[in-house]
Amino acid sequence: MAEHLESYINHKIVITGGLGFIGSNLAHRLIKMGDSQIILVDAMVPDCGGNYFNIHGIEDRLKVHIFDISDEDKTAELVRGAHYVFNLAGQVSHVDSMRDPHQDLRLNCASHISLLEACRKHCPEARIIYTSTRQVYGKAQYLPVDELHPLSPVDVNGINKLAAEQYHLLYNRVYGLRTVTLRLTNTYGPRQLVRHNRQGFIGWFIKQAIDGQEIKIFGDGKQRRDLSFVDDTVEAILLAGASEESEGQIFNLGAQEPICLLDLAQMLVEITGRGSVQLAPFPQERRAIDIGDFYCDYGKINRLLGWQPRTELRDGLSRTIEYYREYKEQYWS
Amino acid sequence: MAEHLESYINHKIVITGGLGFIGSNLAHRLIKMGDSQIILVDAMVPDCGGNYFNIHGIEDRLKVHIFDISDEDKTAELVRGAHYVFNLAGQVSHVDSMRDPHQDLRLNCASHISLLEACRKHCPEARIIYTSTRQVYGKAQYLPVDELHPLSPVDVNGINKLAAEQYHLLYNRVYGLRTVTLRLTNTYGPRQLVRHNRQGFIGWFIKQAIDGQEIKIFGDGKQRRDLSFVDDTVEAILLAGASEESEGQIFNLGAQEPICLLDLAQMLVEITGRGSVQLAPFPQERRAIDIGDFYCDYGKINRLLGWQPRTELRDGLSRTIEYYREYKEQYWS
Repeated sequence: MAEHLESYINHKIVITGGLGFIGSNLAHRLIKMGDSQIILVDAMVPDCGGNYFNIHGIEDRLKVHIFDISDEDKTAELVRGAHYVFNLAGQVSHVDSMRDPHQDLRLNCASHISLLEACRKHCPEARIIYTSTRQVYGKAQYLPVDELHPLSPVDVNGINKLAAEQYHLLYNRVYGLRTVTLRLTNTYGPRQLVRHNRQGFIGWFIKQAIDGQEIKIFGDGKQRRDLSFVDDTVEAILLAGASEESEGQIFNLGAQEPICLLDLAQMLVEITGRGSVQLAPFPQERRAIDIGDFYCDYGKINRLLGWQPRTELRDGLSRTIEYYREYKEQYWS
Repeated sequence: MAEHLESYINHKIVITGGLGFIGSNLAHRLIKMGDSQIILVDAMVPDCGGNYFNIHGIEDRLKVHIFDISDEDKTAELVRGAHYVFNLAGQVSHVDSMRDPHQDLRLNCASHISLLEACRKHCPEARIIYTSTRQVYGKAQYLPVDELHPLSPVDVNGINKLAAEQYHLLYNRVYGLRTVTLRLTNTYGPRQLVRHNRQGFIGWFIKQAIDGQEIKIFGDGKQRRDLSFVDDTVEAILLAGASEESEGQIFNLGAQEPICLLDLAQMLVEITGRGSVQLAPFPQERRAIDIGDFYCDYGKINRLLGWQPRTELRDGLSRTIEYYREYKEQYWS
C-alpha cells in the first residue's frame, strides 16, 4: 500500500455527499485499503447524484446517515472525534443553480458553514478536504489555468462554490482548522448521475452513446476540456488529506491532455459501437454560461503532493461504459 | 444641477437598507435634488445600522417599508416599475459575521438573490447599484489596490459580499440586468451607527473622542486606510447609477490620501478637544482578520465617470462630529 494511504487505517472518516458520485467512489477505495470507521452522510436531495446503489457491495462495512449537514446538532454528532472529513456534499448543476439560486446557496454555502462550525467545535484536529470546482475561474483568460488565475465565475453554482472554498480557507487561517481545497475539473466514471443532462456533459454523452442516440454538442464541438477519471480524482483527494503540506492550500486537478467535445463524443461512439454525433447551435441559456476552451494546470499538486492523472481517457471511458452497461437499471431512471 | 443628477428626477427610486447610514444619506441627497418617488426599504435588523432618525426632516417626502428583501412577494411589489434600485442592504460587521456566519449569509447573499430575482421579473430595465466593499480583496498584495487585485477575503463578511457582487455581475451578463458594483472603502459621516465598535473603527473612534474617552488602537497605529466621506460616496453611487458606461462594471472608491490610524485618532482628539489615544496589542480574534495597510486605487471610476473624493478629511470629520454632537441622543444608545 502506498505510504500516504496508511494514514487512513483505523481512523474515523466522515464523507459528506457520501452516496454521491465521488463520495461513493472514495468510500469504495477506503474500504479496499483496510479497516477504518467510515461514515457516509447524504441529504439525498433529488437530482443531486445520491444513489443507494453506489455503495452496492460495501454497505455492510460502513455507516450511512441520511440528513442535511445544515442540521448542526446531527452534524455535531457525526463529526465528533473524526480524524478525516471529506466534504464532498453539494449541488453541482450549473443549470439548476440558475433556475433555483436559493437552493444552490443552501446546499453549497449554508450547509458548509454548518459543517465548518461543527468541525471547529467538535473535531478541531480533523483534516477537512473540500472539493471545489474549476468553475470558480469562469472563462479562461489564459491556458492552462493555474491557481493564480483570476476568479470570475459565470454561474450561480460557481459563485457559491467559490464562497464555500473561501470559508474553508478562512477557517484554516482564523481557527486553525486543517482544511484543503481541490478544484476539480470534469470528473467522470462509474457511479455518476447520468439520467439527465444537467450535471455536466460527460455522463450524459456516455448514456446517449450506450443508448445508441444522437449526442448533441452545442457550437462547433472544438471547445476543449480536461477530463479526470474518478479513480484519479479520488487519489488526489486521498493525497491531499494525508499531507500536512496541503493544509490551507488550494490545488487544481487536471488531465493528461485536453480533448475537444467533438473528439470525445466520437470516441464514445467508437467505444460503444453505437450512437452518433450532431452539432447544434447554442440555446440562449447555455450560451450565457458557456466558457469555451478550458483546462487546468495541475503543476502545483504534482510538485507538492506528487499527484498526476494516470488513467488514459480511452481506458477510463471504457471502464465507465462497462460499469453502466452492467448496472444500467440503477442509473437510467 | 449637475447633468448626471437630472436622470433621477421624476423617477421611481428604491433604496434597500434605506434607513441605514449610506442609504439615508443618499435619500437626503435625492430629495434635495427635486421630485422623485423615493421608496426606502429596511429590515431594521438589530445592530445593522437602520435608524428612523436618519430620515429626520425628510420623512414626509418618501415612503418607508419595513421588511426583509428576502420576502420575494413584497420585494416584487416594491421594485415593480422602478427605474433605479440602490441596493445598499446588508450586514457590514466583520466581527458579527464571524460570530454568526449564517446570519451574514442570509443578509448578504440570500437577500440579494431575492432582490435580483425580483428585479429580473418585475423591473428588468432598472439600473441596479450595489455597494460592495474593499474587504473582497483581503490583505493588499500591492498598494494602492486596483480592481484587478486578487480576491482573497479574510472574513465571512468579505466572502459573502464577494458572492453578492458576483451575483450582480452575473445577472448583468446572463439576464442583461443593468447592474453596477462599487467597492466602498471606510465610509464615515453623519447617520452612521456609532454605538458599538463592530461596524468599523471610524464611527467608534468618533464617539469615543466626543465622549472624551481613550481611543484604543490595536498594533502600532501605523496601519494606513483610506476614508471616504459619505457625501463623496453618495456622489459616486449617483454617478454610477446615471451612467450607461458603468453597466456590468466594478469600481473602487478611495480617498485623497491614506491616513494611519494613529494620526486619525489624534486628529479626532484635536478636533473635539477631548479624548486621548492608547495603543494596545491585538486581541487574537481581531489579529486573525486584520489586513494591515490598505488603500484603493480609484483611477477607474475617475477615468470613466469623473468621480473623485472632494472632501478634505479634517473637514469631513468636523462636519461629522458636529452632527453627532447635535443629535447625540439619537445615536448613542
